[in-house]
Amino acid sequence: MKYRVCVLGATGLVGQRMVSILSRHPWFDIELLMASERSAGKKYKEAVNWVIDEPFPEEIGDSVLSKIDVETITKEKPDIIFSALPSEAALDIEIELLKRGFIIVSNASPMRMEPDIPLLNPEVNADHLELVKYQSKRGWKGFIVKVPNCSTAILTLPLKPIMEEFGVRRVIVSTMQALSGAGLTGVSSVMILDNIIPYIKGEEEKIETESLKILGELKGGKISYPDLKISASCHRVMVLDGHMEAVFIETGKEVDVDDVKRVLKEYKYNKINDLNLPSAPKHPVIVREENDRPQPRLDRIAGNGMSVVVGRIRKDEALNGVKFVVLGHNTIRGAAGNAVLIGELIVKKDLI
Amino acid sequence: MKYRVCVLGATGLVGQRMVSILSRHPWFDIELLMASERSAGKKYKEAVNWVIDEPFPEEIGDSVLSKIDVETITKEKPDIIFSALPSEAALDIEIELLKRGFIIVSNASPMRMEPDIPLLNPEVNADHLELVKYQSKRGWKGFIVKVPNCSTAILTLPLKPIMEEFGVRRVIVSTMQALSGAGLTGVSSVMILDNIIPYIKGEEEKIETESLKILGELKGGKISYPDLKISASCHRVMVLDGHMEAVFIETGKEVDVDDVKRVLKEYKYNKINDLNLPSAPKHPVIVREENDRPQPRLDRIAGNGMSVVVGRIRKDEALNGVKFVVLGHNTIRGAAGNAVLIGELIVKKDLI
Amino acid sequence: MKYRVCVLGATGLVGQRMVSILSRHPWFDIELLMASERSAGKKYKEAVNWVIDEPFPEEIGDSVLSKIDVETITKEKPDIIFSALPSEAALDIEIELLKRGFIIVSNASPMRMEPDIPLLNPEVNADHLELVKYQSKRGWKGFIVKVPNCSTAILTLPLKPIMEEFGVRRVIVSTMQALSGAGLTGVSSVMILDNIIPYIKGEEEKIETESLKILGELKGGKISYPDLKISASCHRVMVLDGHMEAVFIETGKEVDVDDVKRVLKEYKYNKINDLNLPSAPKHPVIVREENDRPQPRLDRIAGNGMSVVVGRIRKDEALNGVKFVVLGHNTIRGAAGNAVLIGELIVKKDLI
Amino acid sequence: MKYRVCVLGATGLVGQRMVSILSRHPWFDIELLMASERSAGKKYKEAVNWVIDEPFPEEIGDSVLSKIDVETITKEKPDIIFSALPSEAALDIEIELLKRGFIIVSNASPMRMEPDIPLLNPEVNADHLELVKYQSKRGWKGFIVKVPNCSTAILTLPLKPIMEEFGVRRVIVSTMQALSGAGLTGVSSVMILDNIIPYIKGEEEKIETESLKILGELKGGKISYPDLKISASCHRVMVLDGHMEAVFIETGKEVDVDDVKRVLKEYKYNKINDLNLPSAPKHPVIVREENDRPQPRLDRIAGNGMSVVVGRIRKDEALNGVKFVVLGHNTIRGAAGNAVLIGELIVKKDLI
Repeated sequence: MKYRVCVLGATGLVGQRMVSILSRHPWFDIELLMASERSAGKKYKEAVNWVIDEPFPEEIGDSVLSKIDVETITKEKPDIIFSALPSEAALDIEIELLKRGFIIVSNASPMRMEPDIPLLNPEVNADHLELVKYQSKRGWKGFIVKVPNCSTAILTLPLKPIMEEFGVRRVIVSTMQALSGAGLTGVSSVMILDNIIPYIKGEEEKIETESLKILGELKGGKISYPDLKISASCHRVMVLDGHMEAVFIETGKEVDVDDVKRVLKEYKYNKINDLNLPSAPKHPVIVREENDRPQPRLDRIAGNGMSVVVGRIRKDEALNGVKFVVLGHNTIRGAAGNAVLIGELIVKKDLI
Repeated sequence: MKYRVCVLGATGLVGQRMVSILSRHPWFDIELLMASERSAGKKYKEAVNWVIDEPFPEEIGDSVLSKIDVETITKEKPDIIFSALPSEAALDIEIELLKRGFIIVSNASPMRMEPDIPLLNPEVNADHLELVKYQSKRGWKGFIVKVPNCSTAILTLPLKPIMEEFGVRRVIVSTMQALSGAGLTGVSSVMILDNIIPYIKGEEEKIETESLKILGELKGGKISYPDLKISASCHRVMVLDGHMEAVFIETGKEVDVDDVKRVLKEYKYNKINDLNLPSAPKHPVIVREENDRPQPRLDRIAGNGMSVVVGRIRKDEALNGVKFVVLGHNTIRGAAGNAVLIGELIVKKDLI
Repeated sequence: MKYRVCVLGATGLVGQRMVSILSRHPWFDIELLMASERSAGKKYKEAVNWVIDEPFPEEIGDSVLSKIDVETITKEKPDIIFSALPSEAALDIEIELLKRGFIIVSNASPMRMEPDIPLLNPEVNADHLELVKYQSKRGWKGFIVKVPNCSTAILTLPLKPIMEEFGVRRVIVSTMQALSGAGLTGVSSVMILDNIIPYIKGEEEKIETESLKILGELKGGKISYPDLKISASCHRVMVLDGHMEAVFIETGKEVDVDDVKRVLKEYKYNKINDLNLPSAPKHPVIVREENDRPQPRLDRIAGNGMSVVVGRIRKDEALNGVKFVVLGHNTIRGAAGNAVLIGELIVKKDLI
Repeated sequence: MKYRVCVLGATGLVGQRMVSILSRHPWFDIELLMASERSAGKKYKEAVNWVIDEPFPEEIGDSVLSKIDVETITKEKPDIIFSALPSEAALDIEIELLKRGFIIVSNASPMRMEPDIPLLNPEVNADHLELVKYQSKRGWKGFIVKVPNCSTAILTLPLKPIMEEFGVRRVIVSTMQALSGAGLTGVSSVMILDNIIPYIKGEEEKIETESLKILGELKGGKISYPDLKISASCHRVMVLDGHMEAVFIETGKEVDVDDVKRVLKEYKYNKINDLNLPSAPKHPVIVREENDRPQPRLDRIAGNGMSVVVGRIRKDEALNGVKFVVLGHNTIRGAAGNAVLIGELIVKKDLI
């Protein structure tokens, strides 16, 4: 018996990834696909502009899209709702659904920083899931878990073990982000060909704040933020999928490059691996030794897009720490894949 | 009466830019074009694979390329030699020419860090040119000035006024570098399409060391390096021309964003502007206020490629300083244009 | 005294080219800039997303955009109106303006095939301009001239002399068209990166029909179409500017490659060159002998974007004729530049 | 028991595809990997610059590359040799190996047009394999089969059924070819970014001649060429993998678009499908109805890269026939995959 799931915003780029992953998922069955008014009433295969590099899931193609509507969802009663709605559309609907008792895993940015809402990057902070029990104080019968910003999810995976082992005081991060992060029509080709756009709205703030929440420690129902500062500069480049981040870290104590490599390779990510979740990659962080890796086109699909790849680990003499490059798949690890992984965790923890 | 100049390595990408600039120069006449054995004996228009975005200088097209050869140069006696030779080829030839009394402005990396060889980014350190007088101690009858690494030339232009006004303790820089920096065949299209290569051989070391020399103070015939540390991470992206750099600075004292903008706009670059050099841009640093600038395709040609454009100036809370993005044309400001500007300075200073 | 002109649709890609050309035009002064409701009331420099490779015309930057409105135009009484409106918006406005007596040069596709409306590619069919005198029969006090489809303008320049000299029975044309042809937001980057889209709405039909009108002969106030058939296949590729077309021609008589080259080089384009129009290129068709030319990035700016470049002229054994590749700048020769050239012709012919 | 195979030229782009396919092949075992002197002696994983979109076959990674050498092969006695050698290197070695009795499937162009050497696109002309028996007249103890040019392999798949059903008199084909067709370093990024190169050496001649041989009829040990003429124009575009071809056909009799679709969908490709060869796609030709398909990025991997996708089938009024767009994976269907399919056919026909 599979769990019946609903996807909100099924035609966008993150929605396509969700549908792709869920359509071949051992625990979940797509029951309800919802999209904007423009697509409602059409078959999925007719409404969607399928551009991702996975084969179109033919068995879902004839499903008819509903418009996003609380009553329809209430009638269908899905076990979990995966939301790939744009931020502005998400807030009201999510709150109404929570009042009616639904379980939501949401990629939308509103409420990510609320103290009683887990912002999960499961290998890093699966234990924060416990926060959902406090959401009933809001009068919600259901609960919600938020998926972090894409760049933040990628960044915090290698930060976690380094922080635990060496301490982290300051993090400087410069991103080179893929086009798919802006959605189907977010970046026009005449703007980006032979070009870089050095600005992504809200992205730097998200990295600088969400990272602290994810890396925080849950004590007595509250997340205590670590004492570290992050500064980000974000840039859009001509790459289809895969965010690359140049990371410079001032560590709490002197580090040796080999130690960093060892820690990244051997870290036990919050015992998430022991749970045998279908979407959990065997190696959340993969360390490569070659000078010229990671590369988006070659490494974004590592661990089915759920691993991040770290390379060029070297000492940082200016910051007294370490610097490296990390790459992750922005719409899988950074969005849809992470959402499904969180859904799996919710199931495994018997919260459904 | 124009000065007669020789270009070494005239068919490469930097060589093409040199030829383009020199072919319409008010002070210089191209007398001698030299290239590798493969091109020697051919007309320039037949040997060169002209791919830069300037019209081909038809009046130079019929000039016959000589192979790079000290004897030929000795016979022709050019007033200045501009060298766009690859590093490995440059050292021996340059030294032999110096012994014979020639004046060289060289883009090749060997000897850049020698204490008696000026590494000039004229608006920043034109006064270092004085060092050439010490070169006679090596038994050289001529002298040589080195053009800095491209990313370094771009970076040090805005660093200089910030350093003078606020002090600079640490600089973190993450580059997104153009394909032309690797030359005509340096980056294969199948490697870089839909991709980023997070490694450029030797580039990080050059930025970290050359910047200190350029920003150093000349006292008693010696350059004293400033007390600051630089850490770089370099990445090749799918852009034709124009290196972009995300720069994070720990300043010596608290900074205010408006002050930084003012300083960058008003700084008098070493009075170079008063010299009326033909290649000197009116504004070596241009500050843009829009959120999404600079962009390589739109801004690389600012000041005929000799200005750098700074944007997104904002406080850096992690480093207690300032962060911004700077863009410059790598083969003009970062190589050929800078070389010609240095040549002009040599003329103006009556060193010829 | 310059003519006062109005630009409709001044913020789009064709509009930007029009503004760029008109801002430095010896005969025309931009008096009125009009754009959609969204931009109306803003300064041009604030409303426009300037992405073309010409420097922004600072002297126009502070002009305030009006919304597209017949009354405003009627009040301002421009001497010529250049229209870069999208097709759907153009028809009603153009007709109303014609009734009120204005002279319009329009890039919009509606009415291009009307028998009394000249569809001008001036070097090919400047004499068709005479048709405007018949437009008064429609009750119009003004008149309109249409700018052809971009691919068609590029194609008909080399077709004309070949048709005159050798006869043309069939033309097969396969295009590789630039992104700018679809406007500022026409092609999303995630659709076209590492890709080709083999469809451009309406384009093939336009090439197949408009070419015949342009190449037709004006006799007794009517255009008689030539007896030739054209078949087109159109494809969007990852190029910023410059449409390339592979052209295969069945000629009326046996051709020799050298004869074709000679004819293309020596053809007197309708004596348009004798008129000394500022935008008329010295060589409407440039023939290149190299194997690998024309190339969009290297050749699109030939003749300031008003020349087309023909290369790879060779015999076509299948069609008993000739084949070649032709390249032209789609938003200059294929749109804005052609519009201005037509405006110049109107002035020169004392029709204003 | 698997057949032991040797790959010549294992580090190039076609070689990588061969290794990738063969490493997971049910009938073949890679026994011997050969490459140029530069790579010889290195482990495969160290010598190869793996850039294709298949995971690196780790189990092959430690195999040591030999230099290409007839004696080594003679000693190892592979059952089949797959050759991805460049043309200039291939001829002498292939002939020497044939004298020594080896079976070769070669992607190299020399000898493709020899009358006694099959040029196989198996679904089109598997029966031509019979020609190998005549090769013993040359004194060869082994035999060789040639893989066609990539564009030709893609083109002839849909041409075959159209020719059989409607007759084909003339074919005009304009290609838009992927970068991988030029190999690892064939196209420099600074040449092709924002550009098209309208020339691929030898490609047009190969399409125009090889197609006739493939589509020819084998009678009495001789291939009789069909009476049709082909004219090609070839262009390199900014796409990683997947050649697209705009095809215009003058048919022998009037065609109806629906009939063409039906024929393409229902054609029995030489009964190759009945042989159950592992690499044979279920549908050698896939017909798509959408206006904007096929697209390289979305369709090149159809049938694991062994199917070609035909779209935009429409009447051609100029040629009295039909026109369409066809896309195929140039290094799979057009090279490595076709080679392996031919190897499978050789096994199935008991020629080994």
